[in-house]
Amino acid sequence: MAPKVSPLAPAAFPALPAIAGVRFATAAAGVRYRGRDDVMLALLDPGTVLAGVFTRSATRSAAVLDCQEKIGADGGGGPSGEGAAILVNSGNANTFTGRAGHEAVEGITAAAAAALGVAPARVFTSSTGVIGEPMPWERITAQLPGLAAGLAAGGIAGAARAIMTTDTFPKGAAATVTVAGREVRIAGIAKGSGMIAPDMATMLVYVFTDARIDRAALQALVAEAAGRTFNCITVDSDTSTSDTLLVAATGTSGADVAGDAGFAAALEGVMRDLALQVVRDGEGATKLIEVQVEGAADDADARRVALSIANSPLVKTAAAGEDANWGRVVMAVGKSGAQADRDRLAIRFGDLWLARDGARVADYSEDEASAYMKRQELVIGVDLGLGPGQATVWTCDLTHGYIDINADYRS
Amino acid sequence: MAPKVSPLAPAAFPALPAIAGVRFATAAAGVRYRGRDDVMLALLDPGTVLAGVFTRSATRSAAVLDCQEKIGADGGGGPSGEGAAILVNSGNANTFTGRAGHEAVEGITAAAAAALGVAPARVFTSSTGVIGEPMPWERITAQLPGLAAGLAAGGIAGAARAIMTTDTFPKGAAATVTVAGREVRIAGIAKGSGMIAPDMATMLVYVFTDARIDRAALQALVAEAAGRTFNCITVDSDTSTSDTLLVAATGTSGADVAGDAGFAAALEGVMRDLALQVVRDGEGATKLIEVQVEGAADDADARRVALSIANSPLVKTAAAGEDANWGRVVMAVGKSGAQADRDRLAIRFGDLWLARDGARVADYSEDEASAYMKRQELVIGVDLGLGPGQATVWTCDLTHGYIDINADYRS
Repeated sequence: MAPKVSPLAPAAFPALPAIAGVRFATAAAGVRYRGRDDVMLALLDPGTVLAGVFTRSATRSAAVLDCQEKIGADGGGGPSGEGAAILVNSGNANTFTGRAGHEAVEGITAAAAAALGVAPARVFTSSTGVIGEPMPWERITAQLPGLAAGLAAGGIAGAARAIMTTDTFPKGAAATVTVAGREVRIAGIAKGSGMIAPDMATMLVYVFTDARIDRAALQALVAEAAGRTFNCITVDSDTSTSDTLLVAATGTSGADVAGDAGFAAALEGVMRDLALQVVRDGEGATKLIEVQVEGAADDADARRVALSIANSPLVKTAAAGEDANWGRVVMAVGKSGAQADRDRLAIRFGDLWLARDGARVADYSEDEASAYMKRQELVIGVDLGLGPGQATVWTCDLTHGYIDINADYRS
Repeated sequence: MAPKVSPLAPAAFPALPAIAGVRFATAAAGVRYRGRDDVMLALLDPGTVLAGVFTRSATRSAAVLDCQEKIGADGGGGPSGEGAAILVNSGNANTFTGRAGHEAVEGITAAAAAALGVAPARVFTSSTGVIGEPMPWERITAQLPGLAAGLAAGGIAGAARAIMTTDTFPKGAAATVTVAGREVRIAGIAKGSGMIAPDMATMLVYVFTDARIDRAALQALVAEAAGRTFNCITVDSDTSTSDTLLVAATGTSGADVAGDAGFAAALEGVMRDLALQVVRDGEGATKLIEVQVEGAADDADARRVALSIANSPLVKTAAAGEDANWGRVVMAVGKSGAQADRDRLAIRFGDLWLARDGARVADYSEDEASAYMKRQELVIGVDLGLGPGQATVWTCDLTHGYIDINADYRS
């Protein structure tokens, strides 16, 4: 069953600026899907700096382990005279595939390095799709000559499509910011729909910029922004084995962005935009839900409460049914493990306060609460009344569509 | 929409033995439901000893707080010249109802004490149903004269029905064991279907026995057995605000069961039976799933892995779809936070090994795995290959029925 496009999808894929120093190509390797591109290549010019954040799953994929090693090593993510490549396939996650999985990564990396003229240590791969099935990696390497020949600066929209699995729409976001009189461009793509939960939020994301920045500064920016964006979303509390966020800075704008607040904000904005698109494409989603928690003992407790609400099947099904069942929010606060005082707890939908001081407000109106639930974008607010801790996370509702997709889908 | 009886339900409500010293009555108070009994009373003769285990939710109900105080106090759960009473209503949880909630408990308790001739400190109440709505408690106290007049030793089956909310069948279990030549009877009832997760497993349970035992010994037995039964089940990872397990020992058999392994096993057996009936009645359930974890670094890690699998929406939807998607088990192990070594991990369905040493077994057969998934009762086994830790938990699948029930249901 081909899922229809999410009702929460943006009207169209945005126009993304070309980033000088980055070219894209896609191909139909037939890893699992038929009749569509399932491999994307991004070739990065010499001088490009890379940063990355990855899943913390104990059963993460061979490609993730390989990327982590390369990003961690000096010669990998750091500046280099050489170029770099990002090669991604959909349809098979090459996860829990034992020794053969590592051989597949090595095989793809070696072939890509040879075909593209970059060092194997500068080839970053990702694989997303079904877990546990042997990876037919020669199908990917067979496409390398065509990919190399087809590289084009304007290929990012096709790349966004090639990495999709259960996604119902391709995800892209961009920003332009002026730093010291020079225009700096940021363009990113992402895939993700199910198996979405921190840490980190279960998806593949590639962001490109022509900013000039050293590796350590870029890594610090990316890690911090990931904490407020991709690590603050959840669709189903299930954590992928393939999460990968790579940010590549080509330096071609000539603008040094180290310490520039405008660039940091623009980069985080692109990341938040992509993160929210993943939630908007949450499997079966019909509602986007922002959970705002304040008044917690500290930020960690606020996050605990926010995720407990955002991951609660009963809260999410109530949203699906447009049922103003705020008692389930009380339940989710109670089970979170965070410090909470029932008699100080207050709950609102948007600006509509439902409960204060441990009980329903005196002028509670079920009609008003029910009317609010009919919106496509909901805010659930909780004030614990204890301290300065706050957190915001995003999720979607839990619908028949999620069951449809996941009771039958394999990949 | 009235849910049909769960396909996993037992063929019939079991014949439960009468426990000397315990009488039951039920009534239709119209707290929320119409046309059915929604209040149950159990009156316990003088000399009865009570033990209890309760939800740890930070937003637990007024009745739970009251029971905890009474069970904890010497005069409450402990031996007493007086009798005791358990009074339970369905339809309204009297949770997050502020000061009025406590007044409701006090009102019910005082009225029951007066009507039944027991001390207020010996009246234990539970309320289950919708959270956050004011409790119309006078509807319950208005039924007390009729309840007192209708008390009967054989009324336990009706009591099991009166406490149901989304349950599709009443739950009862019994055992008889001989201790020092005397027959000791145990009979219990439970309600629970959704909002089921440790700790403790989100339901109301009342177990009665004619065993003779002191309070501390009974409490120790009950707490230990709860850890292996009610605290090892999950339907949806959501934790109730009203969890209550009360075990009452009347002593009327004359058999002193302190230290008797046969009695301990029989009591735990009744508790396990009731716990599994709750999972069998999990909202929308079509499969009963036992998750067996071994080889963990320790028991706590094993439990972490088992609950991560049992709570994973992707594992549960795969079961619903009879999809042998064991890669999702890999994912759930990976996200659990427990110590795990991908290359030592082994996974089986029942006795069918699917993966060993971090990869699919050489003779993997998708047909065999798929055939296994068609069973109504599934075992998912995981061997982490690290140490002696083990745990078993029970859950059910996640189906359209769960969405049906929870997108519309209020209470």
